[in-house]
Amino acid sequence: MEKGEIMVNLDHAATTPVRPEVLEAMMPFFTNCAANASGLYAEGRRARQAVDHARMQLADALHVRAQEVYFTSGGSEADNWALFGVTRALPEKKHIVTTQIEHHAVLHACEALKQMGWDVSLVGVRPDGFVDPEEIERAIRPDTALVSVMMANNEIGTIQPIREIAERVHAHGVLMHTDAVQAVGHIPVHVEELGVDLLSLSGHKFGGPKGTGALIVKNGVRLTNLIYGGAQERGLRAGTENTPGIVGIGKAAELAVQELPISQKKTAALRDRLMNGILSSLPSARVNGSLENRLPGNLHLTFDNADTSLLLMRLDMEGIAASAGSACASGAVERSHVMTAIGAPQGADLRLTIGVENTEEEISQTISALVRILKG
Amino acid sequence: MEKGEIMVNLDHAATTPVRPEVLEAMMPFFTNCAANASGLYAEGRRARQAVDHARMQLADALHVRAQEVYFTSGGSEADNWALFGVTRALPEKKHIVTTQIEHHAVLHACEALKQMGWDVSLVGVRPDGFVDPEEIERAIRPDTALVSVMMANNEIGTIQPIREIAERVHAHGVLMHTDAVQAVGHIPVHVEELGVDLLSLSGHKFGGPKGTGALIVKNGVRLTNLIYGGAQERGLRAGTENTPGIVGIGKAAELAVQELPISQKKTAALRDRLMNGILSSLPSARVNGSLENRLPGNLHLTFDNADTSLLLMRLDMEGIAASAGSACASGAVERSHVMTAIGAPQGADLRLTIGVENTEEEISQTISALVRILKG
Repeated sequence: MEKGEIMVNLDHAATTPVRPEVLEAMMPFFTNCAANASGLYAEGRRARQAVDHARMQLADALHVRAQEVYFTSGGSEADNWALFGVTRALPEKKHIVTTQIEHHAVLHACEALKQMGWDVSLVGVRPDGFVDPEEIERAIRPDTALVSVMMANNEIGTIQPIREIAERVHAHGVLMHTDAVQAVGHIPVHVEELGVDLLSLSGHKFGGPKGTGALIVKNGVRLTNLIYGGAQERGLRAGTENTPGIVGIGKAAELAVQELPISQKKTAALRDRLMNGILSSLPSARVNGSLENRLPGNLHLTFDNADTSLLLMRLDMEGIAASAGSACASGAVERSHVMTAIGAPQGADLRLTIGVENTEEEISQTISALVRILKG
Repeated sequence: MEKGEIMVNLDHAATTPVRPEVLEAMMPFFTNCAANASGLYAEGRRARQAVDHARMQLADALHVRAQEVYFTSGGSEADNWALFGVTRALPEKKHIVTTQIEHHAVLHACEALKQMGWDVSLVGVRPDGFVDPEEIERAIRPDTALVSVMMANNEIGTIQPIREIAERVHAHGVLMHTDAVQAVGHIPVHVEELGVDLLSLSGHKFGGPKGTGALIVKNGVRLTNLIYGGAQERGLRAGTENTPGIVGIGKAAELAVQELPISQKKTAALRDRLMNGILSSLPSARVNGSLENRLPGNLHLTFDNADTSLLLMRLDMEGIAASAGSACASGAVERSHVMTAIGAPQGADLRLTIGVENTEEEISQTISALVRILKG
């Protein structure tokens, strides 16, 4: 690691560093108390207690019961599990409803389900980036097993009306899943109030460790395993518990939810400052997605007559980390499916996602850099 | 964590603590260099380099190419991926061959495949715990997609003749998978020489972190994803790279393989000392599984006229961590499927698995404790 390097991290939607308090909580479970949480001896029981405690922290943060929390290796596994787990448990059904702006973890799992004989309805979004709950409802058929609509979009940050969608979906006796990977830790996520049956999340998006996530499965929802084997996670997700990782995601969820009132305000204020600075100095900039009901730290822009790769490269040279859209799709030549779905204007796409540790100075630095790059 | 507590860890097959050198290598990637390895900026590229380096470490340790290493969240995911990935890629086939003594990750995945219409042949083992390669070959049919035989058993430590089995399997144009979760880091695993097409491993079994593993997929082998989504792992395993975890498993594999000549000798010597001490003082003890071709640190015993749970509880009270068999099945009321398969005598089952940090004193302490418990 080079020291003293200038680096403005405006790619918080891609990942976040592990918080020091989280890492501290994890540390004992790598070395001193490293027993298998299924071990029938003192050290194993301590590992088990730590896993149970983390499960309660996550349950409290999301307003679910501890036994509705199933730890996974991340958001992608949780999304895949929800889709494959529910469809396998409902072989008499044949249809899934989702949207054009889901994360690839959902969209590509749906592609695989299509090859297995399932029908998939991909509902579009309005140009402001919102899904129309009525349109979701109209897509439901008697053979629909599941509706999956993401809570907050990973590119443009629009927050979907999940509660209304879930109500409409349930009126047809269909299960509702939401990919809340970008939402948890950034906006309030009250699973009971949302009324969803399944919800995916990822630890490293809110100060927890990479390689951790969870699928919330409400009591009574039937789904099969994605990973079979040992009896871990009530028999539904096999594999030795990643005790340090689980401790980390629990602690990170607790902290993030405690601090939400402050972090939301702070990141939204920085985001607005960044947006206003860019829009007032660069007439070629257009904001993608609605400014209402949007993740507080998310800004997504398209610049006329500019090139995405070149723009990111120049920002990198200025010590600014940003992305065009999803990190999971970076390196891709084609334009993002989200940009296509909202009918964004052609140009250079830029996602700037703010975290609590960003400063006003960094925001000013970023505005100046963009002006130099795009007007230079 | 209580300090100064006496604890003899004889449950190394369940898990191992993270080695200090491994944890040290991981640390920067939690906080300072925590970028997404798919990020198109300096810190992202450093994370990518670390992932690439770990892939080479694992490739060198196993004698495969770097592009044949696919990181997973552990051994169970790797096993499930091998089975579901190959069978989905070969829908014209209909049959799998495996053995009665596989880990539940393989056996329960096979149960799920049966429900999806696949036939599964479960080949038995001899009383000494070995699979007969001829019997495996006889089970192969024209519609067989895959043969899966574990390299070393997780309960009795018997090392199967994988090379001979793979040769016979390949003679029929069938793919060969081996679950090497208990083997890697404990005995030489030379994938090229073994001749298998797919091999599963788990980081926390050899001083790496929990929540890490890999599936080795030889070039040319076709399989589908288990987890769909982003383009990570050459598009075959989605999800943000667990950079610290990946760095950890790479470093742990490098160290374990470097030290194999010493660690094998040391653990085998301690195991023999433990075995001889128990057998000479407790006539009720019988060793399960062959003593030839066995994991060096593995001892598995059945004690006549004793109760497993009571025995483990008493050992725990003496500060000795051990298990009856697989940690993944602990809490189970039924006897282990491995004990049933080898026709082990009735009694209390005890698996004692030794690591390099165990001492002769701990071995003596364990023998004395067993004598007190079982003769007392």
